[in-house]
Amino acid sequence: MINITFPDGAIRQYEKGTTALDIAKSISEGLARKVLAAEVAGQVWDATRPIENDTTLNLLTWENAGGKSTFWHSSAHLMAEAIESMFPGVKFWVGPAVENGFYYDIDLGDRSISEEDLRKLEVKMAELAKQNNAYVRQPISKQDAVQYFTNKDDEYKLDLLKGLPDGEITFYTQGSFTDLCRGPHIPSTGFIKAIKLTNIAGAYWKGDERNKQLIRIYGVTFPSQKQLDEYLQLLEEAKKRDHRKLGKELGIFTMDDDVGPGLPLWMPNGTIIIEELEKLAKETEKDAGYKRVVTPHIGKENLYLTSGHLPYYQDSMYPPMELEGVKYYLKSMNCPHHHKIFAAEPKSYKDMPLRLAEYGTCYRYEQSGELFGLMRVRCLHMNDAHIYCTKAQFDQEFRAVNDMYLKYFKIFGIEKFVMRLSLHDPAKLGQKYIDEPQLWLETEDMVRQVLKETGTPYIEVPDEGAFYGPKIDVQIWSTIGREFTLATNQVDFAQGRRFKLEFTNQNNEAETPLIIHRAPLGTHERFIGFLLEHYAGRFPTWLAPVQVKVLPISDKFIEYAKTILQKLKKWDIRAEIDDRSEKIGKKIRDTELMKVPYMLVIGEKEVAENKVSIRRQGKGDLGAKDADEFINAVKEEIAQRSAE
Amino acid sequence: MINITFPDGAIRQYEKGTTALDIAKSISEGLARKVLAAEVAGQVWDATRPIENDTTLNLLTWENAGGKSTFWHSSAHLMAEAIESMFPGVKFWVGPAVENGFYYDIDLGDRSISEEDLRKLEVKMAELAKQNNAYVRQPISKQDAVQYFTNKDDEYKLDLLKGLPDGEITFYTQGSFTDLCRGPHIPSTGFIKAIKLTNIAGAYWKGDERNKQLIRIYGVTFPSQKQLDEYLQLLEEAKKRDHRKLGKELGIFTMDDDVGPGLPLWMPNGTIIIEELEKLAKETEKDAGYKRVVTPHIGKENLYLTSGHLPYYQDSMYPPMELEGVKYYLKSMNCPHHHKIFAAEPKSYKDMPLRLAEYGTCYRYEQSGELFGLMRVRCLHMNDAHIYCTKAQFDQEFRAVNDMYLKYFKIFGIEKFVMRLSLHDPAKLGQKYIDEPQLWLETEDMVRQVLKETGTPYIEVPDEGAFYGPKIDVQIWSTIGREFTLATNQVDFAQGRRFKLEFTNQNNEAETPLIIHRAPLGTHERFIGFLLEHYAGRFPTWLAPVQVKVLPISDKFIEYAKTILQKLKKWDIRAEIDDRSEKIGKKIRDTELMKVPYMLVIGEKEVAENKVSIRRQGKGDLGAKDADEFINAVKEEIAQRSAE
Repeated sequence: MINITFPDGAIRQYEKGTTALDIAKSISEGLARKVLAAEVAGQVWDATRPIENDTTLNLLTWENAGGKSTFWHSSAHLMAEAIESMFPGVKFWVGPAVENGFYYDIDLGDRSISEEDLRKLEVKMAELAKQNNAYVRQPISKQDAVQYFTNKDDEYKLDLLKGLPDGEITFYTQGSFTDLCRGPHIPSTGFIKAIKLTNIAGAYWKGDERNKQLIRIYGVTFPSQKQLDEYLQLLEEAKKRDHRKLGKELGIFTMDDDVGPGLPLWMPNGTIIIEELEKLAKETEKDAGYKRVVTPHIGKENLYLTSGHLPYYQDSMYPPMELEGVKYYLKSMNCPHHHKIFAAEPKSYKDMPLRLAEYGTCYRYEQSGELFGLMRVRCLHMNDAHIYCTKAQFDQEFRAVNDMYLKYFKIFGIEKFVMRLSLHDPAKLGQKYIDEPQLWLETEDMVRQVLKETGTPYIEVPDEGAFYGPKIDVQIWSTIGREFTLATNQVDFAQGRRFKLEFTNQNNEAETPLIIHRAPLGTHERFIGFLLEHYAGRFPTWLAPVQVKVLPISDKFIEYAKTILQKLKKWDIRAEIDDRSEKIGKKIRDTELMKVPYMLVIGEKEVAENKVSIRRQGKGDLGAKDADEFINAVKEEIAQRSAE
Repeated sequence: MINITFPDGAIRQYEKGTTALDIAKSISEGLARKVLAAEVAGQVWDATRPIENDTTLNLLTWENAGGKSTFWHSSAHLMAEAIESMFPGVKFWVGPAVENGFYYDIDLGDRSISEEDLRKLEVKMAELAKQNNAYVRQPISKQDAVQYFTNKDDEYKLDLLKGLPDGEITFYTQGSFTDLCRGPHIPSTGFIKAIKLTNIAGAYWKGDERNKQLIRIYGVTFPSQKQLDEYLQLLEEAKKRDHRKLGKELGIFTMDDDVGPGLPLWMPNGTIIIEELEKLAKETEKDAGYKRVVTPHIGKENLYLTSGHLPYYQDSMYPPMELEGVKYYLKSMNCPHHHKIFAAEPKSYKDMPLRLAEYGTCYRYEQSGELFGLMRVRCLHMNDAHIYCTKAQFDQEFRAVNDMYLKYFKIFGIEKFVMRLSLHDPAKLGQKYIDEPQLWLETEDMVRQVLKETGTPYIEVPDEGAFYGPKIDVQIWSTIGREFTLATNQVDFAQGRRFKLEFTNQNNEAETPLIIHRAPLGTHERFIGFLLEHYAGRFPTWLAPVQVKVLPISDKFIEYAKTILQKLKKWDIRAEIDDRSEKIGKKIRDTELMKVPYMLVIGEKEVAENKVSIRRQGKGDLGAKDADEFINAVKEEIAQRSAE
């Protein structure tokens, strides 16, 4: 018998050679029908693979990232089977799961593939899925594997084999298709109930443009048709809300080849949103006792050797500039600069906690191919701050940070969010994790308590903490249900020591502070990208670049309209006038397109009655009101940062 | 006879071979006593050098930069004469005039020099000055010059001679001292009435640390003892107001070796000042119709090839970062990025003028030896904006920019300032200046008219315009009378074309906009450095990092003091409490040191009467007032940005 430890700590005994699927069945048939794979001793395995030793076990379903990616990887094999049946002689390169689905890179020789072919492939895949063929794992010697693909005349798989050590090679077979694959896979093809092949693209072999161009076919699959329908609807909605499209239409940001990829230029409308966000952050941080600093965007090599960014993080940094024999780097994080400000003057316990905030601009190198609108950029305006505190202050400080997140979620109408708390593994102290067993347990527990007590949704992830302390990744969902990683919080036991930061404690001894890294609004780039989708460009009034547009029905009313405009401006309401000689219908349509929250229509009646007729974006006519009454209501709406 | 043209355009005839001094005497003996040198055909000459041809003439006195520097250069020769008489065998390297005085680098062999020696040298110099020896110019052949310094065994002057072409070499002699020198010099040593040798420093020969270290002696001289006394007093006052000293004491900024030279880190108190300045700029620019943008700190090589910064400005830029085969540069100016935003969307005459503003951070390479506190830095937060306008709009736009300067000067109590208007030279159109003769004349004239009509003090400087248009350097003086270059305004005919910027004019034709570059508050670095000296760290209340400090006389009054603190904070007044168990005298002294504008002393009487006792920084006790009354007054003072 072997001992199986479950995630809740329970230990049960099973026959040696049992499988995750057997174990699931022993719990319930319903569970077994959902199990796609299993985490065995921290590694994702086939649910059907025999377990021979004592181990930890975590059953993976569609709800787990590991379950989902296994499902999609198996779907890539299913697609390959369908392709091979339709295009005999096709050669296969690699077919991984990706963020939303999977792809396979294939070589069709001189043949090409059409949208129509994709529809046929979907039908074929559905047919093969119905056969409910098992994914069968088969360890194989390198010699036999090479023989197999030599017979198949598949130079791509032979190339892959070159890099694999003998003894670790496995084949997977489902139905009539066999692939070189280290797995894992779902138990059988019958799990795949809904299939959509989404895209055909070209992809150079090994990503090198000097190589042959292969055909990449993208697809996505689900355990039910309902999930696929929902997903396609989400895609449709997301397309309408694409932040790149809206960003251009609304004059939010632009990119320029001469400036460089991943380096957005913020246009006047985008800059208004940036300034409103910064105003919110500065107000919030001031109330929470933060002090602001401003630091340069570069630092000497030595700074990043001290911080440890060099050499470990070098690949994500811009290359250095060498000046007077010294290497300077664009900063990829603000912490080293803030630590230097902490260290600039002697500190005592009376100075603690010290909270240093800066909307610091960092530069990170992302590969050109990875760049995506505002979501993946090389220039990041970060809502950054570092809290230097004593151990005794940690609980309260972390609680305050968590409250700040919750406050922001409320303001922005973010209803679904999860804090992903990454913990250490006690077995790896001193190696993967800084060797402070007590501090780890204490801070992890304090974080956990705060999350529990505030009812903050969170999940715990063992063995994914940062080197220097527990880490919280904040996941949020937009109104249409797409998931975004907003920000990361980190507890840091290590940097204080690396930078020799000290304060004199009440016993007159030098003590190293704990550091909390936090950035609740993430970066302007990602957050405004998120908000564009979240609001579909219809920003709440406080964030809208133009808040009120005054629309005179004809030229005779321009004068009166201008007096209204002046009143609005006097109260710092961002207002414009449309004084073109256009029909009022066109003026309204154009203003709707720019998603301005309020339109004030001015005609004969309004002038006579000294009123304004109000139209609310997306809601239509709200009737006529006294101008001052309207202004007071809008002022209040803006001051409250109302969501509507 | 030859024709001499004076600065006012008058032409008079003189004998061939006359001198500037003769001409001055022909005007008045009083003038002649003041003439130090003369600008002859644009070159500074000895006032005693014969003029052989028709030319322009500008007599230079102490009031002219050229007169002053000639005076100080001659003083360096006088000092050298004194040194040679006291230290026979001394060898001389170079002895130029500098910003405030002069120096000479000398080689004393194994001997050293003391403060006491400086005093002796001053006495000797005064004695030699009284002799009123003439500075005699003597053209000499290279062979004879080499012979002279070979005899004198002076390898330094021989080294200098190597680089000089035969036929252009001159010696200057006064009294018993002869130097290799291209001049010019003042007529005689008697002009030098007051002498102060200020400093002894080491200086590597030719600035290369592998070379021998020479002794550099600094001095300053004046035409009267009164001027020297005033200067020494200014120095004394400037020392107290040294922005580096105050910057440290008041927690404004810090420098760090690991970050790099010339890269200030702004501490919390400095950041408050930065934010207040930016708030002022943003409000002012919003009222003036500017739109704000945010742009990255880097750009591709190609951007700077288009702008022309590369290769011409390369020496002032940080070296490039090479990424994916492309060179990226830290921006040294914001214009190219703003031009790209102008170009991002099609423009018509209705969009003009477009005023794009950004507190953009630029990076410039200044040699390590040139760096000085906040005054010479490598990181510049610039109050930048670019105005794109039609020719017809230029006058009004330039006028508005000028008004903005005047508004700021008033706010900051800058009473002395001069706009230095640099013009083109029609003879150099198409070479030194872009070939737009009409535009040059028109814009120069419009600028001149605005300066005249607004009564703005200005001087005109021929042949110093930028390549692409007239330039205005803004010089300001601090309260203690030190001069600072605040900012540069430029009119730009060229960049629009280089960047292919266009708008559709009313005739439906593509037209290139004129561009005004402007930065009235200069950079945070230089302006805050200036303000530290200008205010001696006693910032007006609206700028002060801490505006009010609440000082309970003893612990029993802390509770009441805290209610006052809360009231202040509620009204966004930056307030702190000193709740230490210290004597009130110490609390007041410590608050005075931090130059907090207001102190509220809280004791028995104040609690009983529900009042606060007010002390104003530098003014002492202002008596007791109702807290709300005080708060209202301070709120108003802050809102008005009062100077006191």
